[in-house]
This record gives sequence, structure tokens and C-alpha cells, in this order.
Amino acid sequence: MTADESALAFAERSPETTRIRTITWQDPLPTAALGAEMAGINYMRAIVAGDVPPPPIAVLMRMQPIEVEEGRAVFAGEPGEEHYNPIGVVHGGYASTLLDSAMGCAVHTTLPAGSGYTTQTIEVKLVRPITRDSGTLRCEAEVLHRGRRQATVAARLLSADGRLLAHGTSTCMILNG
Amino acid sequence: MTADESALAFAERSPETTRIRTITWQDPLPTAALGAEMAGINYMRAIVAGDVPPPPIAVLMRMQPIEVEEGRAVFAGEPGEEHYNPIGVVHGGYASTLLDSAMGCAVHTTLPAGSGYTTQTIEVKLVRPITRDSGTLRCEAEVLHRGRRQATVAARLLSADGRLLAHGTSTCMILNG
Amino acid sequence: MTADESALAFAERSPETTRIRTITWQDPLPTAALGAEMAGINYMRAIVAGDVPPPPIAVLMRMQPIEVEEGRAVFAGEPGEEHYNPIGVVHGGYASTLLDSAMGCAVHTTLPAGSGYTTQTIEVKLVRPITRDSGTLRCEAEVLHRGRRQATVAARLLSADGRLLAHGTSTCMILNG
Amino acid sequence: MTADESALAFAERSPETTRIRTITWQDPLPTAALGAEMAGINYMRAIVAGDVPPPPIAVLMRMQPIEVEEGRAVFAGEPGEEHYNPIGVVHGGYASTLLDSAMGCAVHTTLPAGSGYTTQTIEVKLVRPITRDSGTLRCEAEVLHRGRRQATVAARLLSADGRLLAHGTSTCMILNG
Repeated sequence: MTADESALAFAERSPETTRIRTITWQDPLPTAALGAEMAGINYMRAIVAGDVPPPPIAVLMRMQPIEVEEGRAVFAGEPGEEHYNPIGVVHGGYASTLLDSAMGCAVHTTLPAGSGYTTQTIEVKLVRPITRDSGTLRCEAEVLHRGRRQATVAARLLSADGRLLAHGTSTCMILNG
Repeated sequence: MTADESALAFAERSPETTRIRTITWQDPLPTAALGAEMAGINYMRAIVAGDVPPPPIAVLMRMQPIEVEEGRAVFAGEPGEEHYNPIGVVHGGYASTLLDSAMGCAVHTTLPAGSGYTTQTIEVKLVRPITRDSGTLRCEAEVLHRGRRQATVAARLLSADGRLLAHGTSTCMILNG
Repeated sequence: MTADESALAFAERSPETTRIRTITWQDPLPTAALGAEMAGINYMRAIVAGDVPPPPIAVLMRMQPIEVEEGRAVFAGEPGEEHYNPIGVVHGGYASTLLDSAMGCAVHTTLPAGSGYTTQTIEVKLVRPITRDSGTLRCEAEVLHRGRRQATVAARLLSADGRLLAHGTSTCMILNG
Repeated sequence: MTADESALAFAERSPETTRIRTITWQDPLPTAALGAEMAGINYMRAIVAGDVPPPPIAVLMRMQPIEVEEGRAVFAGEPGEEHYNPIGVVHGGYASTLLDSAMGCAVHTTLPAGSGYTTQTIEVKLVRPITRDSGTLRCEAEVLHRGRRQATVAARLLSADGRLLAHGTSTCMILNG
């Protein structure tokens, strides 16, 4: 039985305690194909401006880039109850996804049109719990090294009142066109 | 504008290309409170058996534990289009979440009733792209060290045909009751 | 045959191309016992001032702390030919050791007398090669999170002319007295 | 004052408690140049056999490869008092260096003549303390993924009686000739 099937079985039995959220998105491939032809910083700016549909994962995770410049990206994220793990707090994968998004976008801003990147590693440190009451989080990423074949980047995830919740690093491979 | 708002704006403009998924879950806190009183292995078995509602993140990520024993956990996961990032593949956060889930559960199986754990670090290596056509993935985690105050654990994420897609490690703090 | 024995066999055959370095140190245990009774910042200052013998690893690696304050430590290091690996550059373990030293000392400066710490994880990113001609390196570490039970810390390793050579992070467990 | 100068000052004052070790090595560059022309597995076998001088870091760290095959390397290492840190145990850099050596060599065994590699990341988990009484350690590394442009590898460091002391992972970039 998948989690989806199990969740539906519980929903049928206990409709009054069931929570529901509807996720809406566009096919991500045409947008990605468009982005692949653009300089990275321009593609990121188009996402910030809402000129292209948000990638589905951003809808799922209630997150979006709010500031981008060359070598730097800032995301906002609003964790909810739908991101909870079995021990009663927001899943570590939420922080990982937000940190990875900001770090990947920061690297992406350094790419000329026709180049690409792929994330090789993500390292995450969780230092304070995140809950459905944490409010809007801020995730700031900065490229530390941009070489010809690899880039390294670091990010911090902060609560609405500026406390450090998690931080991370990533190594990306640069794919020259 | 949040990703949700942006996605809805695009959905209004282009209803014919819009994709929709409805997520259903139960309040995770009563289940977590129940789990906190159980030996870890018993709580994990109750989740596998579907005796308790799946945690919401499991529904969101289409993943669930399928085998657990002391020091070991196996998850299945089915990535979909809703997990896509802006560059046209499944987001690295999907692999991170699946690896973290299997690793956290493997540590959880070693806990006596009244103990707890918290994940301190997650390290992820992405070695092959994951797409909406990847099928059902298998994620196997094994505790490498279980000390009095910390545990370390490693996991592998495999495609349906057994190819390595990603792997990871984690350090957890043991909280003795 | 150990590396030492093999090196001596080559030295006998080719005395004219053989390089020799003599390492000198004091038993590290009395100094460590003394340090365990001091506030961390005071112990670190005593090492910087040369009031206690340097730990042997510092002699081996030609490194020493040059600045310490609460939550921060700066090391200098001078890699030499004796730190080379089989592919003709300074071994990655050299950068790891310098980063780990600066990070551990930065955490150590936050400890009251009677407390201790142990390093749980070290993550290192190597971004430029280090050679015997790199000169004196500078390694700066800063504590990012100091909780009751864990601390996280990041460090950068810079060449004499300020270029980033490597960077890293670490998670430490705090052992309260 | 460098650590070397400080150590010599203490040695002059307290000659009776001073420990001395002499390190001997050959210029590592001719050997590395020779190795660069060989298939990786053959170069590694030449080092195991003692047909070429050991790299200096191996002498310093009292470590050497003892088994190599394609995608796998085993090292032995004998930590001594000269590897101690200021808190009275073997420095975390010792485990890092041994793990990194075994992991790098395991990747090296997969290289055809004319190819190279460079280590991008090293992640280390320290789970039990190492002391001058730990005896001869065994470090086993295995390549988990060997792609065209990157390789990932994991290693375990075991005490003489088979207990896990540390483990790690690494990502390497493959440089095709």
C-alpha cells in the first residue's frame, strides 16, 4: 500500500480530521527548455518575476526565489503541516530542499547561455527544529568558488526572526556548452 | 507572489495544460505522540503495516517504508512530475528526502521506548538524474555506528533496475529519555 | 613493509636524493590534562602564546593558531614537500587537518572550564591545488551555531595572496562537565 | 613563532622529556610523473610492492596501501604520539588523511593511462577515539559510482580488533586525457 493509498483510507474513515491541499502546476519541460537557452541570471530573474511558471517542487514546498544576483540567491519558504515527518516536526528534507534550491540557483546565476550545471553533493546541518508555526523562512546562498569545472556554494536557512535553523554546502559540476 | 499564487495564475490562463494533484493527510501530532511512547522498531512496523496514518511528507513525496528491522530500513518512492526542479529533472531535494527518511527510520529502529533522536547532518551524493519515468525507487539504509550519544548511518537510492542514483550518510544525536 | 621501512630502503640506495626532517615534541598528555581544567579560550591563548608545548600534529603539519577569540580561530600553515601525495601535490589530508584544527579550536574557545567537545563530522571541499610553493596559508574558522549539545562551524583556507584553496564545515558534540 | 620553533624551544629546556622522530623521503615529483603515464591500477600495485618510493605523506602518517584491485583499496596505518592534537587523542586529520588516501587510491585504480583525477570533497565521521595505543588500523575503500566525469567512493577505518573508528565518503572529478 502506498502512502497515498494509506492516506486515502484514513481520510475515508475520519473525514472530519482529514486535511486536504491541492497542488497545481504546468508541465516543467517547456520552461526548462526555454531556460536552457538563456543566461542563468536571466532565467532566474524570469522565475523571480513570475514570467514563467514556477517549477512544481516550488509549489509543493511553498518556496520561491525572491532575490538573485550573480553568485547569490535568496529564497523564501513557508513550511506547513504537509511537510511533517513521523516524529512531529518538519522533515529534514524540507530544509535540504530549500538549501539545495538556493544553492543551485546561486550557481545557475553564474552560467552563460548554453552552459549547464548538475549538483554533485549536498551537505546539510540541522541546528534547530522547524514547525508549522515557524512562519516564512529566508534562505541565503552564496557561491564560494566558481572554477571552470566545479563550483562550491554555501547557504543559511533563517527563521522569520533571524535565528539560524540550518545551513549547508554543495558542490556542482559545470557543464560547458 | 508565492509559488502557489503564481501557479494558480498560470492555471487560470492555461487550464488545458494545468496539472492538479490533491494531497490528503491527518494531523501528524497525535501519531507522533503515540510513536514517542513506543519502542522505535514497533512504531516503524506500525507505519509499514498502515496501522497509523502516514506522515504527510510521505504522501507529498509518494514514499513509504517497506521493510524495517533493527538498524535497517528500506523505503520505496515514486517520483513524479510534481517533484521537478527548474532545469527539467526531479529536484535533488527528492533524493535527499528519501535518503534522509530511510536513514532516520533506520536509526529510529534502534531506540528503546522513551528515547528519541534528532538528525544533525545529512550528506547526499547525486550520481544519476531522476525523472518522472524512473519508476519505483528503492532506498536502503543501514546504521553503521550506534553509540550512546550519536549514531551514523548510510543509505543508497536505486532505480527499479538496480542502478545507483544517489547515496548518502547522516549523523544523528541520540536523546536518552 | 611499512612506508617508513620502504623510505629507509630508498634512502640507503639513493642517499644523495634523500630528504630528511627531524620532528621534535613533548608528551602531549600532560598539556592536554592541563588544558582540560582551563576555560577553552584561555587554553587556546596559552597555545598561541607558546606558553605550553605545541601539540605534535602541529609540528608535523607546520601549523599553529595565530588568533583566537570566542567562537573564532585563525591558523597559519606552511605545507612542505613532506606533505605530498602520490600524484604530485600536497595531500588532501593536509587541508583537512588544517581546517579541522581551526574549526575544533573555534569550538573549543566557547567551552567553559570543565566542559569538553568531540568532533563528529568534518566536510572538506578542495577547490585549488596546494603545493610546496604555496607559502604560508591562512585558515579562518567561525562557529555558526553553538547549542547546548552540538556546535557547527565553518572554515576557509586561503593562500598567501588571499585565494580560496579549500573550505569546510564540522559538527561537534558538546560534553558538559 | 611557528610550531617547529616552539617545539625546539621546549626541547632545549626539557631535553629529557623530548621525543624525536626523523622522517625520510625522496622527491615526490619524479615518482608522480612516472605514475601519470601508467594505468592507475599498475601505479598503485607498484606502490604496494615498494617498487617506487612511498609518497612523503605516507611516511609522515605511518600508512601504506596493502591491497588494491579495480575500484578498491585497503590501507594500513599506525597512528603514533606525533599525531596527537591538543586534547590528548590522535587528531581527526589522521583519520581524514587515511580515509582520503584509501578513497583516492580506490578511484585511481579505475583510471586508464593518461587519465587523472582530483578530489573535490571529503566527508568524515569520527565515531570512536584513536590513541597511540590503537595499534595497526585497517582502512577499506570502495568506489560506489564511476561515471565519465565523477566518481564517488566510501571507506571505513577499523581498529586492529575490527571496531569501526571512523568512516567517510568522497567525490572525485575524473580528468580524461
